[in-house]
Amino acid sequence: MNVEILAVGTELLLGQIVNTNASEIASRLADHGLTHRYQGVVGDNPERMEVAIRQAIERADALIITGGIGPTLDDVTREVVASVAGVPLEFDTSYSESMRRRWEALGRDFPESNLRQAYRPAGSDVIANPKGSAPGFRLEVDGCWVMALPGVPVEMLGMLEDDVIPFLVDRSGIDRGVVRSRILRSWGLSEAAVGELLEDLFTDSRNPTVAFLASAGVIKVRLTARASSVASASDMIAPIEDEVRRRLGEHIFGADDDTIERIVHAALAARGWTIGSAESATGGLIAARLSSEPGSSATFRGAIVAYAPDLKSSLLDVDPDVIDRHGIVSEETALAMAHGARGTLAVDVAVAVTGSAGPEPLEVAVGTMCIAVVTPLGERARTLRMPGDRERVRAYAATAALQHVRLAIQTS
Amino acid sequence: MNVEILAVGTELLLGQIVNTNASEIASRLADHGLTHRYQGVVGDNPERMEVAIRQAIERADALIITGGIGPTLDDVTREVVASVAGVPLEFDTSYSESMRRRWEALGRDFPESNLRQAYRPAGSDVIANPKGSAPGFRLEVDGCWVMALPGVPVEMLGMLEDDVIPFLVDRSGIDRGVVRSRILRSWGLSEAAVGELLEDLFTDSRNPTVAFLASAGVIKVRLTARASSVASASDMIAPIEDEVRRRLGEHIFGADDDTIERIVHAALAARGWTIGSAESATGGLIAARLSSEPGSSATFRGAIVAYAPDLKSSLLDVDPDVIDRHGIVSEETALAMAHGARGTLAVDVAVAVTGSAGPEPLEVAVGTMCIAVVTPLGERARTLRMPGDRERVRAYAATAALQHVRLAIQTS
Repeated sequence: MNVEILAVGTELLLGQIVNTNASEIASRLADHGLTHRYQGVVGDNPERMEVAIRQAIERADALIITGGIGPTLDDVTREVVASVAGVPLEFDTSYSESMRRRWEALGRDFPESNLRQAYRPAGSDVIANPKGSAPGFRLEVDGCWVMALPGVPVEMLGMLEDDVIPFLVDRSGIDRGVVRSRILRSWGLSEAAVGELLEDLFTDSRNPTVAFLASAGVIKVRLTARASSVASASDMIAPIEDEVRRRLGEHIFGADDDTIERIVHAALAARGWTIGSAESATGGLIAARLSSEPGSSATFRGAIVAYAPDLKSSLLDVDPDVIDRHGIVSEETALAMAHGARGTLAVDVAVAVTGSAGPEPLEVAVGTMCIAVVTPLGERARTLRMPGDRERVRAYAATAALQHVRLAIQTS
Repeated sequence: MNVEILAVGTELLLGQIVNTNASEIASRLADHGLTHRYQGVVGDNPERMEVAIRQAIERADALIITGGIGPTLDDVTREVVASVAGVPLEFDTSYSESMRRRWEALGRDFPESNLRQAYRPAGSDVIANPKGSAPGFRLEVDGCWVMALPGVPVEMLGMLEDDVIPFLVDRSGIDRGVVRSRILRSWGLSEAAVGELLEDLFTDSRNPTVAFLASAGVIKVRLTARASSVASASDMIAPIEDEVRRRLGEHIFGADDDTIERIVHAALAARGWTIGSAESATGGLIAARLSSEPGSSATFRGAIVAYAPDLKSSLLDVDPDVIDRHGIVSEETALAMAHGARGTLAVDVAVAVTGSAGPEPLEVAVGTMCIAVVTPLGERARTLRMPGDRERVRAYAATAALQHVRLAIQTS
């Protein structure tokens, strides 16, 4: 069962809204092992809609159209699908009556323009819309199931899950099997380096497939298997997951929806430790991320943002001699900040960052970041060089700091 | 100039990411009066990419492709465009050398797989990518400008604005006129309230047009005029801008690319004042935003994130009696935190936030945020109720805190 998605709406072509409907539909198609190869977007223009619908019908077994079935004059999906199918529109009296009753029950006047929504291509079935007034419909055209849903996400999603997905799964046959994905999250290697380490797995990958996705310094490795059952798909993924973990080692920090924040909080909680940060260049970003998770107050106590140099001494007890001798951006200063934060914040683990985020260099080249972590069992300090502009350098440095907290706890 | 967008990436077809690139590109095409009628999405599959690219070339004057130009083996946009154009790939030695130098400067080993990015279809021009390692390219194929950009949004956007949009505007002819937009930024009113205040301007708007866009509590009012010259477009916008400013009053905090951070820093600098924050529920977000601007060290000194209740007393000198009598989430506690921060951080202006970000309520309903600002000339405190989940409540509270700093400075 090969399914396409066509979103209709001039507001999409003007960039006024983002096509989240397509990704919501796509993820559900993937969850159910339904093939999905193509998405399109067109405006509320009958001629161009007709061309796009005809192309999809030629390629696909099913086409999900979102948008263009509301009450206003620019909603023309009903008319265009009827034209492509070569059938007239029919008025559904029972639907118009139920709409009138609904408005009466709300004590409101019924807008006559709503009656446009009671028309459907002749021979089509209604796809009920419990959350809105625009009904969807389904019609087979030249061997392709054409289904029209509203563009309003909450209405569309309900109809997708209650009707469209079960319909497609039902039509796609029973030996279609299931598709399961496992995502491994790595940090500390470039996308190219991960690609080289896993090249043979990737090149030969058919089932399971191996794919990479990079975002904000995290490289995700996605393993996807298609099998007759969830259990056998998982069995197919397991040995490749083991091999990827073996090759990437401590660079793998989590799987699926794990975040580095959650991993750090769990590792701290397991040891009964609390944490705080001492920040200069990151300016509070590490603290903001440590406090982003619900329940983070169990381990995160607070932070000192010592942006002005004198605050590093007055609030974090950094010896001015250390700064004079090694520089503000140095592993020595970062370690002194972390040691100071353990006292000031009364925490077990402290992480500190001092660096040059740019655009003007501060003692050292832009992108130089010194990170220190002090735990009850030891300390570590690293100097990293990060690419990109100020925003990116700061965000990467905050991620790197959290990763070094993880590594410091795991190896202590 | 009729421009199409084709996004390449299996992760889009699996619904793992949302195609925000398309809406970002589309809104910029609209801003510049460039026609845009069609968007497509295909996976990293050479055959289907080729079909989609050929169809776009037939319909459009320009095609913007996003994705598929990274270093890994599933990045095949270079190969497919070369195949469609009927030209070989060529190796760009100067580009490969500059990549090697970039990695050397960062002190890292150069992954040889990165060299895939030095190949381009013969005859194509480079579209420089200052924020990443994958260069874009541009090639005319059968009268259509085919342009390939990376899928990483921050890289794609820079190249779009620096190169692609000026190129398209340049090619789109001189008698098309110019389109100029002016964006007024407001805070403190809902989108519906802004809509009601400006309803008559909006309903009658043709040229200039008036449009609204809401994001993260900021309502932007966009005024767009089309005219024969920049000067006359600006003349058409000016009286409407005056009227919008008159109606929205102090809710307007900036125009065009202004950020609240920049407005606050400028207002502080004008008075020779420094600033710091005392944060509980926002966990460092205000400090992170105050330090996000280049040169912010001129006015921003630092922050105390007192997430654990005892740190509010030990680091911010909040009298425990104040907390006992009024609660952790109270205007009295917020004011005490701000007064304490002025001393601890040695700043002229302090902003403090204490609140309940959820999901579990803390003394008060989730979304309740108390904000206090203390300046050398006075103080203010406000209690706000914010909608949404934890992430949204915290982000809104940080924005609200910066807005109250602006209002406190402007009225003092």
